[in-house]
Amino acid sequence: MIIVVSPEATPDDIDHIVARIEQTGRQAHLSVGTERSIIGVIGPDDPGLQDVFEALPHVESVHRVTKPYKLVSRDFHPLNTIVDVGNGVIVGGRDLVIMAGPCSIESEDHIFDSARAVKAAGANILRGGAYKPRSSPYAFRGLGEEGLRCLAAAGAETGMPVITELMSQRDIDAVCEYADIIQIGARNMQNFMLLDEVGKVHKPVMLKRALSGQIEEWLLAAEYIMAQGNPNVILCERGIRTFETAYRNTFDVNAIPLVKELSHLPIIADPSHGTGKVGLVTPVALAGIAAGADGLMIEVHNDPEHALSDGAQSLTYEKFGVMMRAVSGVAAAVERTLTGVRTPAAAR
Amino acid sequence: MIIVVSPEATPDDIDHIVARIEQTGRQAHLSVGTERSIIGVIGPDDPGLQDVFEALPHVESVHRVTKPYKLVSRDFHPLNTIVDVGNGVIVGGRDLVIMAGPCSIESEDHIFDSARAVKAAGANILRGGAYKPRSSPYAFRGLGEEGLRCLAAAGAETGMPVITELMSQRDIDAVCEYADIIQIGARNMQNFMLLDEVGKVHKPVMLKRALSGQIEEWLLAAEYIMAQGNPNVILCERGIRTFETAYRNTFDVNAIPLVKELSHLPIIADPSHGTGKVGLVTPVALAGIAAGADGLMIEVHNDPEHALSDGAQSLTYEKFGVMMRAVSGVAAAVERTLTGVRTPAAAR
Amino acid sequence: MIIVVSPEATPDDIDHIVARIEQTGRQAHLSVGTERSIIGVIGPDDPGLQDVFEALPHVESVHRVTKPYKLVSRDFHPLNTIVDVGNGVIVGGRDLVIMAGPCSIESEDHIFDSARAVKAAGANILRGGAYKPRSSPYAFRGLGEEGLRCLAAAGAETGMPVITELMSQRDIDAVCEYADIIQIGARNMQNFMLLDEVGKVHKPVMLKRALSGQIEEWLLAAEYIMAQGNPNVILCERGIRTFETAYRNTFDVNAIPLVKELSHLPIIADPSHGTGKVGLVTPVALAGIAAGADGLMIEVHNDPEHALSDGAQSLTYEKFGVMMRAVSGVAAAVERTLTGVRTPAAAR
Amino acid sequence: MIIVVSPEATPDDIDHIVARIEQTGRQAHLSVGTERSIIGVIGPDDPGLQDVFEALPHVESVHRVTKPYKLVSRDFHPLNTIVDVGNGVIVGGRDLVIMAGPCSIESEDHIFDSARAVKAAGANILRGGAYKPRSSPYAFRGLGEEGLRCLAAAGAETGMPVITELMSQRDIDAVCEYADIIQIGARNMQNFMLLDEVGKVHKPVMLKRALSGQIEEWLLAAEYIMAQGNPNVILCERGIRTFETAYRNTFDVNAIPLVKELSHLPIIADPSHGTGKVGLVTPVALAGIAAGADGLMIEVHNDPEHALSDGAQSLTYEKFGVMMRAVSGVAAAVERTLTGVRTPAAAR
Repeated sequence: MIIVVSPEATPDDIDHIVARIEQTGRQAHLSVGTERSIIGVIGPDDPGLQDVFEALPHVESVHRVTKPYKLVSRDFHPLNTIVDVGNGVIVGGRDLVIMAGPCSIESEDHIFDSARAVKAAGANILRGGAYKPRSSPYAFRGLGEEGLRCLAAAGAETGMPVITELMSQRDIDAVCEYADIIQIGARNMQNFMLLDEVGKVHKPVMLKRALSGQIEEWLLAAEYIMAQGNPNVILCERGIRTFETAYRNTFDVNAIPLVKELSHLPIIADPSHGTGKVGLVTPVALAGIAAGADGLMIEVHNDPEHALSDGAQSLTYEKFGVMMRAVSGVAAAVERTLTGVRTPAAAR
Repeated sequence: MIIVVSPEATPDDIDHIVARIEQTGRQAHLSVGTERSIIGVIGPDDPGLQDVFEALPHVESVHRVTKPYKLVSRDFHPLNTIVDVGNGVIVGGRDLVIMAGPCSIESEDHIFDSARAVKAAGANILRGGAYKPRSSPYAFRGLGEEGLRCLAAAGAETGMPVITELMSQRDIDAVCEYADIIQIGARNMQNFMLLDEVGKVHKPVMLKRALSGQIEEWLLAAEYIMAQGNPNVILCERGIRTFETAYRNTFDVNAIPLVKELSHLPIIADPSHGTGKVGLVTPVALAGIAAGADGLMIEVHNDPEHALSDGAQSLTYEKFGVMMRAVSGVAAAVERTLTGVRTPAAAR
Repeated sequence: MIIVVSPEATPDDIDHIVARIEQTGRQAHLSVGTERSIIGVIGPDDPGLQDVFEALPHVESVHRVTKPYKLVSRDFHPLNTIVDVGNGVIVGGRDLVIMAGPCSIESEDHIFDSARAVKAAGANILRGGAYKPRSSPYAFRGLGEEGLRCLAAAGAETGMPVITELMSQRDIDAVCEYADIIQIGARNMQNFMLLDEVGKVHKPVMLKRALSGQIEEWLLAAEYIMAQGNPNVILCERGIRTFETAYRNTFDVNAIPLVKELSHLPIIADPSHGTGKVGLVTPVALAGIAAGADGLMIEVHNDPEHALSDGAQSLTYEKFGVMMRAVSGVAAAVERTLTGVRTPAAAR
Repeated sequence: MIIVVSPEATPDDIDHIVARIEQTGRQAHLSVGTERSIIGVIGPDDPGLQDVFEALPHVESVHRVTKPYKLVSRDFHPLNTIVDVGNGVIVGGRDLVIMAGPCSIESEDHIFDSARAVKAAGANILRGGAYKPRSSPYAFRGLGEEGLRCLAAAGAETGMPVITELMSQRDIDAVCEYADIIQIGARNMQNFMLLDEVGKVHKPVMLKRALSGQIEEWLLAAEYIMAQGNPNVILCERGIRTFETAYRNTFDVNAIPLVKELSHLPIIADPSHGTGKVGLVTPVALAGIAAGADGLMIEVHNDPEHALSDGAQSLTYEKFGVMMRAVSGVAAAVERTLTGVRTPAAAR
């Protein structure tokens, strides 16, 4: 950590800062400049220390020079993490994963029908919400455990691992029983108690970025999970909140290569939430893959205008098929593969 | 709700939209314009309907004309809500409330000392965190239940109700046992399961605005609590996240009069988190009161440079006293009172 | 336009609103709802009317139902606009354009060397700044007219049209004399006087999106240029300002397909400014092309660590060559072509 | 400046960085840490250097330790600047200034009527736009020079200095002839050519903050003006653009005390643009004064529903009078005075 001292500080003021640094068991390394003095803090970093030093009189600013996360950092683990989610599907390898299905599980028939359709088009993981985070308490909030049971059955029939959102510590046993991947939604990215809980199980966890989550906060949230002993973390960029009102969220494509540089964890792109508009889903899916994402999460519905949630951003089965063929071409261009899709090239 | 139809829609396309509206049990009222047609939807509103109509083909946009919340709305309850938090303190009346104390409860002695100091300066509610939301899993996360016990004892000794943050459904019984007001922090504003839980108890709840929480989402989060039967909700503006990096958060002073216009619930200003810089706390506290807030939440520490958290935004006892005298003057100018502070006028 | 009336409005209040609408020469179409009444305004739209109606007593909100721009709208001109920028290069066709070169023109030799290098790697338009917008008045602000002369000479020698930024009405004649495309920078997107000026000449204009420019404002800025008679407008997405501090700007990939849907104008992606970090430029360039951009603008420098500006986001000649080969693959996957690059496929 | 070196850098890599620093004529001061090495750069700061060092290989981050502005800094000029704007009105003293009037100058009669009304209520500077920045090219863009003439005449009759916006270098002579204070609008905060021009005249300049202008950028824009020799700069906080859609802009009250801490320049609060909603103007005006602003800029119109622009945020004469009495009370509480308003206290 580097402490920049205010210009008006006297030698005594600087001595006081140095003493406080030494009190924490670290060494202070003073450089007296022409305008300002700078103090380097040498010794183990501690996330609380920045606060401590910022509170000292005559401290103008405090700069961290080490990253606040360790286990998720590529410095710590240079090779890409590969997460095995079951049924022969791995996340983070050369093969892209495609998670697809309806926003909400609406009925047993509906999820079975969806599962068969997305599988046929080349998806390899089935998604569906049983517990739905809704802004309004009066909106449809999901089928709960009955929904989980249907989802698991549909996954089993089609041979796909399933992913679903966990919103409450109380539901962790049920979700672990039925799901292959636990999703932590954007609104719970900093629900630290929930992060602790999913860190204690060994299921793969997909952690979505918060609406205003900075990359560093997101990686620290992943660190919470890994710090409890669960190394199977997958990140998911799902759009951030900005000043732009033309779309529900702004998909942050920069995040994909930056996360790849900073961390060894795999990252999925969610253009359905990342745009909120059906017409933008396919181009942004292609962008995500071109930028280096390890897969996609896509909302698909046989009849979006009768969907119980997120109809405006759901692809029909037909549009999903078209998207998958386009993804296949871009995947090949960036040296990734898409199993289960007959590529346009192969079809010729 | 109003549906704007795309210019290219044919009469058949419009009929399809009308039929879908009628299927939901509502009436459609069509106005054919020169460029675009517009359809008014008449009948009870439903938060899921916007999604449904946006998913229809040839729908360009959907505009809601009623507010999505009811119980929190001033339309529903025109008079200001007054929340009785015990020990003779009410929130939302002519008297301002001042919640003050350390960020974290650090020890029994420390919270007793803090309680006496803030009481002496005119505070009437004691704050202190026993469960701390921290970005890093390696930071100090609070004393837990032992902290709650100390907080309650310090409140009892000084005759002040106490407020503390609840982060997990698992801790609700403990927090209800010791606290007079349950705080829901910014990161949990849309932790819907936790909102449901605190809606089921009858303790007053202070709901902080999320870092990127829109006013409407914040009021809907309050609606979650009220919809479960708990009418004792207090709102707290604590700064939002913007592009500006010169302060930790940007205190949104506009929110105060707008919330007062839209809702009957009381609202507190938190300039400590709203700025993150000790030098800005007092001017922004004065601004909050001038704009109509019902009180303040202020972090105070006897020795900020040794605080276990948030030292950089904590006032010393002395600075807190200075702030209280300044608040007293502004309060009088906007026809509010501050009990327990010897006003400069009275002192003359 | 649709006017939503407050619930408390009396019939007289509504009559007053209707009368004000009729005063503007438009018709009012009233729908009385159960909770609120709604008034449709029928007649020609006018950008100032929203303001007028919002100022009326008992008006809760005003919703526009037509787009505020006309000439730039795809409704008005369904086919893609193709802009001929000279030397056989067109923007907006199946062929992608690649604008490349140094941030600033540093010397005659330097721009000639850069021109040859980017041309060899497949660029077809040469970029270089002679007038530089700099946050600080003490930074290098460009070579001015001498820079323009060097740029034009380098373009002529290598057979590439050239693009450069115009910052002031006073320099328009000089820029028109030397440049083939006039760039309007992000900070001048709403410099309406400058937009009027470049609307009066017939040079192609590339209009960058402002740091916090909404899509609608950006298209209205293009409308300013077209309204003066210049149809040769090219848009450029160069990243927006958000809460994220890990990169200088956040490239908004959603904007590309949305602009394509709303407007007939071509759009270029600028991943150099859109990220501000050299390591992210190539993946984001690929993302831009995958999402449908008509070309790229890339900062290239032979020796970034000695660049006079923007070194941290400039590709070396070698990295630019690597990027071009990768772009070529993605272009083919989305059915675009890149003339002048030996594609990996063709090379095999 | 401090350079943090990547952990993988070898001693040779570090030598290369040191050599590049020395090449710029500065000294390098190396501290070898356990995880990372840090290099302090000793010698004069230069705004372009950060770019240069960020572009060096193995540089992880570059931290500036000195502020990039000088003339506007309180370090350079510790006492508050007082700007004399004529007719006995000074900005930045104990007396608050109140700039009031219509958004646009609509006619000679109208501006005279407005001037008398705002003067009677206690305003001491007259505002009115002759050149209006409008998002749409089809909106009313002001009366131009004829408007300036009317404004100056109305100011002369009522004994008030006048302020009006300059949008183009071409109009500078006309604006200087008629106005006492030149306003630079938010959209031109980084129109560097215009800043240079107003720096060359000796008229007071009021510089509004850009919609997404960071405090540092805003102060650098003021530095542009001062660097050309004009010391009479007044800042104006007029709301920033955030994710919140409930108001047109978010008034950033934190900016007021922070600007006061960093700079000696006076600062005005504009709650009309800072909220965009008439119902929020008065509370936010009070907040601005409570936070330490040196005055207010308020849009006032005799008949907002017939205003040619900004009706929805304009106060009527009556509401302006009510606001002025409330401001007077808060001003007294923060030890400021408001000449020309009969204070409630004085009235008793």
